[in-house]
Amino acid sequence: MAVYTDVSEDELGAFLLNYDLGELLSFKGIAEGVENSNFLLHTKAGYYILTLYEKRVARADLPFFLGLMEHLARKGINCPLPVKNKKGVALGELSGRPAAIITFLDGVWVRKPQVAHCAALGKVLAQFHLAAADFSIERKNALGPAGWRKLADSAGLRANTVFDGLSKIVGDELHHLASAWPGTLPRGVIHADLFPDNVFFIGDRLSGVIDFYFACNDVMAYDLAICLNAWCFEADGSYNVTKGKALLSAYNAERKMSVDELNALPLLARSAALRFLLTRLVDWLDVPPGALVRPKDPLEYLRKLRFHQRIEHARDYGLAA
Amino acid sequence: MAVYTDVSEDELGAFLLNYDLGELLSFKGIAEGVENSNFLLHTKAGYYILTLYEKRVARADLPFFLGLMEHLARKGINCPLPVKNKKGVALGELSGRPAAIITFLDGVWVRKPQVAHCAALGKVLAQFHLAAADFSIERKNALGPAGWRKLADSAGLRANTVFDGLSKIVGDELHHLASAWPGTLPRGVIHADLFPDNVFFIGDRLSGVIDFYFACNDVMAYDLAICLNAWCFEADGSYNVTKGKALLSAYNAERKMSVDELNALPLLARSAALRFLLTRLVDWLDVPPGALVRPKDPLEYLRKLRFHQRIEHARDYGLAA
Repeated sequence: MAVYTDVSEDELGAFLLNYDLGELLSFKGIAEGVENSNFLLHTKAGYYILTLYEKRVARADLPFFLGLMEHLARKGINCPLPVKNKKGVALGELSGRPAAIITFLDGVWVRKPQVAHCAALGKVLAQFHLAAADFSIERKNALGPAGWRKLADSAGLRANTVFDGLSKIVGDELHHLASAWPGTLPRGVIHADLFPDNVFFIGDRLSGVIDFYFACNDVMAYDLAICLNAWCFEADGSYNVTKGKALLSAYNAERKMSVDELNALPLLARSAALRFLLTRLVDWLDVPPGALVRPKDPLEYLRKLRFHQRIEHARDYGLAA
Repeated sequence: MAVYTDVSEDELGAFLLNYDLGELLSFKGIAEGVENSNFLLHTKAGYYILTLYEKRVARADLPFFLGLMEHLARKGINCPLPVKNKKGVALGELSGRPAAIITFLDGVWVRKPQVAHCAALGKVLAQFHLAAADFSIERKNALGPAGWRKLADSAGLRANTVFDGLSKIVGDELHHLASAWPGTLPRGVIHADLFPDNVFFIGDRLSGVIDFYFACNDVMAYDLAICLNAWCFEADGSYNVTKGKALLSAYNAERKMSVDELNALPLLARSAALRFLLTRLVDWLDVPPGALVRPKDPLEYLRKLRFHQRIEHARDYGLAA
C-alpha cells in the first residue's frame, strides 16, 4: 500500500509544465510497491507511472536506477522507460521528493507461477544480465554480507521473539557465509529483487520487468538464487524441482553458466534466503502494533534457508553441472 | 487506502470471460476510496474501474447504486457507466465479493476548491437532482436522524475523550434536530457525499462526479448543505461566503429553490455537520492504535456545527430568499 506523499493537482500541473506530455487528465495513487509513492498518471500523451522516491531510496542512487532502465529498454528488454523533461532530464522534484515519470507497462503479475512462467523468467533474467553488461554506472549492493550483519545486529535478541533460537541460527549462518561467500564468480548488474510481483505477463507471454530499485553490481548467479527462492517453492514450503529446472535451464540457454557458478548455487541460495529472512525480520520487528499493513512472514525464508542448508549439489535444484 | 481484497489474475481472467472487454492487459489496486476495493483495469477494450464491494456496502443496495449511475449517465450527467456482461447484467461476483466494472472517468479532484469550482459544483448538483427525479428505485438514507442516534449511542461517553463535553453537545443537537428536521421539504435522490474527492475537473472544467455509494432518497436541499460544509470552509475553519454564494447561486439557477428550502439551510447545514461529525467520531474511536491509516478529524465538523448553530438566516450563507 504505497502512497506516502500526497500530491496536489496544482503541484503536479506545475511539474508537468516541464514535460511534453500535454494536459493532465487523471492521476490516482497505486496500492503497490512498498518503498515509494506511485501514481498512475494519464495525460493527453498517454498513460504513465509517476514515482516519488521516499526516504528508503538514496537520492544518489537514482541516476543508476533511471539510467539502467533506459539502458535496458534501449537494448530491447521490456521495462519502463524514464520520460525525459524538456531539458532532457529524467529526474525531477515534486512535493519535496525526487520524482520521475516512467512509461506504463501492460501486464499482470502472476500470483501462483507455473513451470512456463519460471522458464520465461529464466530467459529474461539472462537477457537482463547480458544487456546490462556494458552499463557504465556502478552501484554497490547495500544488502550484501556487510549489510546482512547490520540487519542481524538491528534485530539482535528480539529475533528470538519471532522464532525460538533464531538469533543464533542467523549468527551461525552469517559466520558461515562470511568466509564462504563466492565473491570471485562472474559479476554484473543484477536485479536483486525479481519476485513474481515485479514480472508482468499478458496471457502466457512475459510482457516486462519492473522495479529496479534494488539493482546493483554483484555476482550474477546470486540473482538466479533469489529467483529460485521466490518462484520455485510451493505454498506448503516444498521446493518444486520442475520449476527450478525450467528456470535454470532457460537461464543457461541464454547465458551459459560456468561450472563454478553452478556449484555455488546451494551457497548462493542460502545467502539469498538469509538476505530476505533478515529484511523481513527487521520489518516484522519494527512494525507498530495494530498497523493495517501486515509485513511479510520472515519464517517463510527461515524454512527456505534450512532447505538449502541440506543441499549439497546444484543438480538437486534441477540442473547438473 | 482501499484494497481490502486481493484478486488473482486467474480469478479476474475467468470473471472477464463474462464480458466483451477483450484480453486482460493490466490491473492495479488504487489507493482511493475507503469503503470498497478498487482496481484500475486495462483490457483490449480500454480502461475501467473494477470495484469489489466490501462489507460496509449492503448487497441489497447495489441495484440502486448501479442503476442510478446508468440512469444519470443516460441523462447526460458525466459519471461512470456500469459495464454490462454478456448477459446484460452489471453486477457480478469476484473473489467472494459482489463486483462491478464501471467506465474510467478522466479528471482530478481539487485539493483546494476555488470559487469557480464551487459554482461548477452547484450547477452539477442541481442537474443531478433534476436528472434523478424519475429514477424508479428508492433507497432510504441510513444516515438520517435515526442513524445519527445509533452512531451517537455507539460513541457514548467515549466522545468526551476526543473533546471535553462532546457527548452532551451531540446529545443536545440530536434532541434539537429530532423535532426540527424539515422532512416535508422537496425530496429526491441525493448524492449525500459530494466532497471534493468525488468531483473531477480537467483544468477548470468539471469532468464528472463519482462514488454514488451513499446516494439515497432524502431532502434535496440537504445535499446542498453537505456541499456547503465540504467545499466552502477554509483550512482555518472560516466560512467563505463568496464560495457559498457561488455554490448556492449556481444551484438555484438550474433548480430554483423554494423559500422554505432556503430558510431551512441553517438547520440542514447543522444536520449535515452533525452527520459527518458522528461518522468521523465513530471511525476515530474505532481505529486500532498505531494504524497507518489516519481517520479524518471529527473536530473539524464540530467547528462547522458550532458555526451553523449561530446562523439564523440563509442570506448569511450568501443567497437571500
